[in-house]
Amino acid sequence: MTEGIRDRVAIVGMGCTKFGERWDVSGLDMMVEACYEAYEDAGLEAKDIQAAWLGTVASFNTGQPAAEALKLDYIPITRVENACATATDAFRNACYAVAAGIYDIVLAVGVEKLKDTGFAGLATGVASGSGVEPPSPPPVQFALAATSYFHTYGLSYDEGKRVLAQIAVKNHHNGALHPKAHLRREITLEQVLNAPMIAWPLGLFDCCGVSDGASAAIITTPENARKMRDDYVLVKGLGIAVGGRQGLLRDDYDFVHFPENIAAARVAYEEAGITNPRQEIDLAVVHDCFTITELIIYEDMGFSSRGKAKEDVESGAFSLEGDLPVNPDGGLKCFGHPIGASGLRMIYEVYKQIQGKAPGPPERQLKKTDIGLTHNLGGRPGSFTCSVAIFGRRD
Amino acid sequence: MTEGIRDRVAIVGMGCTKFGERWDVSGLDMMVEACYEAYEDAGLEAKDIQAAWLGTVASFNTGQPAAEALKLDYIPITRVENACATATDAFRNACYAVAAGIYDIVLAVGVEKLKDTGFAGLATGVASGSGVEPPSPPPVQFALAATSYFHTYGLSYDEGKRVLAQIAVKNHHNGALHPKAHLRREITLEQVLNAPMIAWPLGLFDCCGVSDGASAAIITTPENARKMRDDYVLVKGLGIAVGGRQGLLRDDYDFVHFPENIAAARVAYEEAGITNPRQEIDLAVVHDCFTITELIIYEDMGFSSRGKAKEDVESGAFSLEGDLPVNPDGGLKCFGHPIGASGLRMIYEVYKQIQGKAPGPPERQLKKTDIGLTHNLGGRPGSFTCSVAIFGRRD
Repeated sequence: MTEGIRDRVAIVGMGCTKFGERWDVSGLDMMVEACYEAYEDAGLEAKDIQAAWLGTVASFNTGQPAAEALKLDYIPITRVENACATATDAFRNACYAVAAGIYDIVLAVGVEKLKDTGFAGLATGVASGSGVEPPSPPPVQFALAATSYFHTYGLSYDEGKRVLAQIAVKNHHNGALHPKAHLRREITLEQVLNAPMIAWPLGLFDCCGVSDGASAAIITTPENARKMRDDYVLVKGLGIAVGGRQGLLRDDYDFVHFPENIAAARVAYEEAGITNPRQEIDLAVVHDCFTITELIIYEDMGFSSRGKAKEDVESGAFSLEGDLPVNPDGGLKCFGHPIGASGLRMIYEVYKQIQGKAPGPPERQLKKTDIGLTHNLGGRPGSFTCSVAIFGRRD
Repeated sequence: MTEGIRDRVAIVGMGCTKFGERWDVSGLDMMVEACYEAYEDAGLEAKDIQAAWLGTVASFNTGQPAAEALKLDYIPITRVENACATATDAFRNACYAVAAGIYDIVLAVGVEKLKDTGFAGLATGVASGSGVEPPSPPPVQFALAATSYFHTYGLSYDEGKRVLAQIAVKNHHNGALHPKAHLRREITLEQVLNAPMIAWPLGLFDCCGVSDGASAAIITTPENARKMRDDYVLVKGLGIAVGGRQGLLRDDYDFVHFPENIAAARVAYEEAGITNPRQEIDLAVVHDCFTITELIIYEDMGFSSRGKAKEDVESGAFSLEGDLPVNPDGGLKCFGHPIGASGLRMIYEVYKQIQGKAPGPPERQLKKTDIGLTHNLGGRPGSFTCSVAIFGRRD
């Protein structure tokens, strides 16, 4: 009989670097920056860490660089890679090891150095010998989802483009307020609509940027957490689903909703005991690699009915003042997507919001933050890795 | 209060491909071959798997290829990479998830396709942005350990070379009997001594080969295992230690014994309740990437006293007929080292030996096989990843 992760592990410290073009630092430097902020937040030292999980896609091969950079002393350090869900999967494995009672205090860190390492974009991420042809670049993959969505729900180009543009404008508004975001500026609807086209119908502002960054979490048992701080954050649910292209052969594969999203959310919601996500979730930080992705996520996560996300976007439901703020930190749109770091960057925002300590000006702090969700999606239609994680305030 | 892994998870099925130059198959093909043998051995089907861990270094980036090849249906598949301990670390994370009660039945699979993918050797395994200079090739790294060992314990070149050669002869004798080994032939002491030099004092037969292969394990709780088969195998201990080069700065770093070996063994022995390894362990499958590595492992694992492994080699203690057979399957020397597969290949041998079902002719089956050990070591002196795992017969 299996049991979920709900309330069995807690986050007692987190750190996050400034994201952006960090020409002046290495991946190791950023790892140190994020982890030492997390240590300080948790009130502990490197020597207290009993095991670590390192999420990274393009920056390191093994756990060894983390051992050196963080001066961890012959403990286990596991490198996890799982497309854009890399950091969340590193976090998940760390949680399971604590829930199993193997360790008391562990570290999960995600890091990616993309700007000065010749990283040519996600499309090159196919290893030799995989038997998989290099996919078309991500904008093209998600443009296909956009045209499918517009077609399925009867949106004209102008209508669909305007809905997507509102998501970009919202996220830039939010990111402009966040001191650690990469792109900290507001944009207008007109800027989005008139921007250069990248992959029709997705323009420049429909796409997230490329940046460097790292984020880290200290995980322990709730029993330990209680001794360490009052405002620890509980893990409520962790779902991951990986699709293997055979999904494309199914009659119900619509290129609009992604079965990996739905499968991962089902597990996370079941563990967390969430039956009405729109009502029960107070904030969500989701994988807006493209504006269309965020639109689809609204529906796949159950925030909006199928085909109805447009109405929620237009009513402002997902803005900072809405009933379910999505990407209150500005999302990938403003943080960019240092692949192995993004999942933990999202958890950092939820953690800080739940604690009532959102970095930046007071208007960034959301009013109701009992339950938060993070979501990652990596890969391509038919073969995604999706992670959904739910976090909650201590009782 | 932490508790170890001892007797909390069980292996109920394993599979292993033939290792070697598998020009006719892909990494995906080998994954299928190993996993379906494991499914059949466990008496279950792909649809019964609730989560998977994929260990691979050079063959795949994410869990997605496994989802496709194995037709796993939107479950979590985590890719783990941790140098030469990759497969064992994938196995370890799978064990923790079962021990945490998150899943009932999970899969750990390790795979590597090296022969036709342009793999240029371990020395190239440094990612961009790591800030680490490409290391010298492994034979050079371990040659340094050999010369240090000879110097420290006063062995002449001829004496030391002859000890190492006996390890190669032993492993080739064992591998010649194993139907799944790559290099299935006996070699003589003279062949080893007269072989071309690779990195002084290591010659051709002191080095393991490069091959393709995959191995897989089905892991569940002991409660489930009891319902599935009589001869399931229990996990008794799992230790991993990663070094970060700062060890080189210590006064006691001797370039002969590796602190990662010792730290990983300490954890595994403590979990398994082993206090006298030489007496309590019945067989060991260890990381003989080079003959000197196996010699050092004898001492680091506590099988031989420091500087005394020579005596145990000469007495035949580690041969099939010895009191502690080491690498009864032929080791890396005869299986080669498809990096992400080796750890689970070792576990396969221990699993089969404990069950009394060693593949091959009857003389391969060891007489006493209550407790078995596997060991991996990857990286370079000062920055190794070492895994030690202990397995035992059910009560």
